[in-house]
Amino acid sequence: MIVLEEKKQRAIEWFNLLQKNICENFMEIEEEGAYQTSDMEAGIFIEKKWTREGGGGGKMRLMNGRIFEKVGVNTSVVHGELSREFRSSIPGAKKDGKFWAAGISVVVHPQNPFIPAAHMNTRFIITSKSWFGGGGDLTPIRPAGKQVRKFHSDLQKVCDNYQKGSYPKFKKWCDDYFFLKHRNEPRGAGGIFFDNLDSGEWNADFEFIRNVGDTFKNSYSQIVRATKDNIWNEADREYQEVRRGRYVEFNLLYDRGTLFGLKTGGNIDAILMSLPPRVRWP
Amino acid sequence: MIVLEEKKQRAIEWFNLLQKNICENFMEIEEEGAYQTSDMEAGIFIEKKWTREGGGGGKMRLMNGRIFEKVGVNTSVVHGELSREFRSSIPGAKKDGKFWAAGISVVVHPQNPFIPAAHMNTRFIITSKSWFGGGGDLTPIRPAGKQVRKFHSDLQKVCDNYQKGSYPKFKKWCDDYFFLKHRNEPRGAGGIFFDNLDSGEWNADFEFIRNVGDTFKNSYSQIVRATKDNIWNEADREYQEVRRGRYVEFNLLYDRGTLFGLKTGGNIDAILMSLPPRVRWP
Repeated sequence: MIVLEEKKQRAIEWFNLLQKNICENFMEIEEEGAYQTSDMEAGIFIEKKWTREGGGGGKMRLMNGRIFEKVGVNTSVVHGELSREFRSSIPGAKKDGKFWAAGISVVVHPQNPFIPAAHMNTRFIITSKSWFGGGGDLTPIRPAGKQVRKFHSDLQKVCDNYQKGSYPKFKKWCDDYFFLKHRNEPRGAGGIFFDNLDSGEWNADFEFIRNVGDTFKNSYSQIVRATKDNIWNEADREYQEVRRGRYVEFNLLYDRGTLFGLKTGGNIDAILMSLPPRVRWP
Repeated sequence: MIVLEEKKQRAIEWFNLLQKNICENFMEIEEEGAYQTSDMEAGIFIEKKWTREGGGGGKMRLMNGRIFEKVGVNTSVVHGELSREFRSSIPGAKKDGKFWAAGISVVVHPQNPFIPAAHMNTRFIITSKSWFGGGGDLTPIRPAGKQVRKFHSDLQKVCDNYQKGSYPKFKKWCDDYFFLKHRNEPRGAGGIFFDNLDSGEWNADFEFIRNVGDTFKNSYSQIVRATKDNIWNEADREYQEVRRGRYVEFNLLYDRGTLFGLKTGGNIDAILMSLPPRVRWP
């Protein structure tokens, strides 16, 4: 059996490695350029470290590029005590509220309205219990049926490798979660979402988490390369900025991670890096 | 004593008249034009009526102009039954949840970063109790000390005429309410805010409400005229769009009216007309 300290260490190492790999991948694509923004310079990731008053901190990497208009790739390792109001809603935290959490969070808002926006997050959380959570999903602006199908089928393979029946379950979880109740519409085209993942086989769970991260990186990079030279016009761009308003509405009205972070004194810039660079509510 | 039906009627008539007067005022200013947007056409208000499934409806008037980049002036008269989860938080609604509400709501996002954004809302609400609520406040983008002082002193006169000591109380209420806890910063430069207003003298309360509306209209129109020809540059505009992000954060994370409307099946367009036309989170 692996002791908890080793699990923590391996999780942290993995999240850092994935952050490095995703940033390198995205900067490679930036270098390749795109048809309609070829006059712009390729972006690079800027790193900002932050520390949390209650314990721990994070590494935020942000790029404002010519393909990736705004992309954040953040890792964090935090620990401390949950305030009383949150203890009852977090598994295993009722007694003393102590927690430890490490994770990676990726949000991409591309320049080109034909490249779907994307989100991926995986985390390892320890209270008196321990579990993984996370997911990945696409938010296309203009129809992207082929790309969405590819993304879903790539994630399905990862789920099938992990646990029979997990794909439809995690897919439905995603659809249910990323839904704007006040507009009665989904945020995007879905993907997978899961929480409280603890099968009893930590190595298998961890492998699944690593595969979700790798597959997101590879699948989404392919989607970006396949769509980045599509031609867009002013109307596409306007529509994109309006649709991005829905993304803001979801994250500020419903997203548990965002609201949890804001209410527990998390790093504002890291939490709100998910918000799109330019948005319209006409 | 005035019977309830007459109060309703007089409140509705007033909110409609104020809506008409504010729209006319703002369109007059649009006609006058402004130095830096003189090549644009003057905007006009477009009216959209909506009905509420549970009962009642509203008249939403929206203008996208050359001075008023986006301004909404909405009135509504709604009635029905509050869902159980809301009854305990609304005075006099515990028993059967029946309510009636009429009001006007104004939100202005100007083109020129030197014109403060503005908000005004007044309402008359009836459950087993009845009361007025509302307020008005400014959100300057660039420093606007003189304008802010004038706005405050105009509102102070209205309060002083109504009730001794009400101005500092309503001013503090406003400062406490329009505050972004997650950033530890105020939304803007304040104004007044009040709720559950029922002095026992309905006529005096109603006169106060009318004076708040009229004074907002006159005071803010003067502010717009005094600042609309100020010269701004790209940096001012960029800063404006970033600051507007705070406005969005406040309205979606904290504003009771917004959250209440979204959760009770209000009209989405009318509720979210408060959101600024163009916003950045760089």
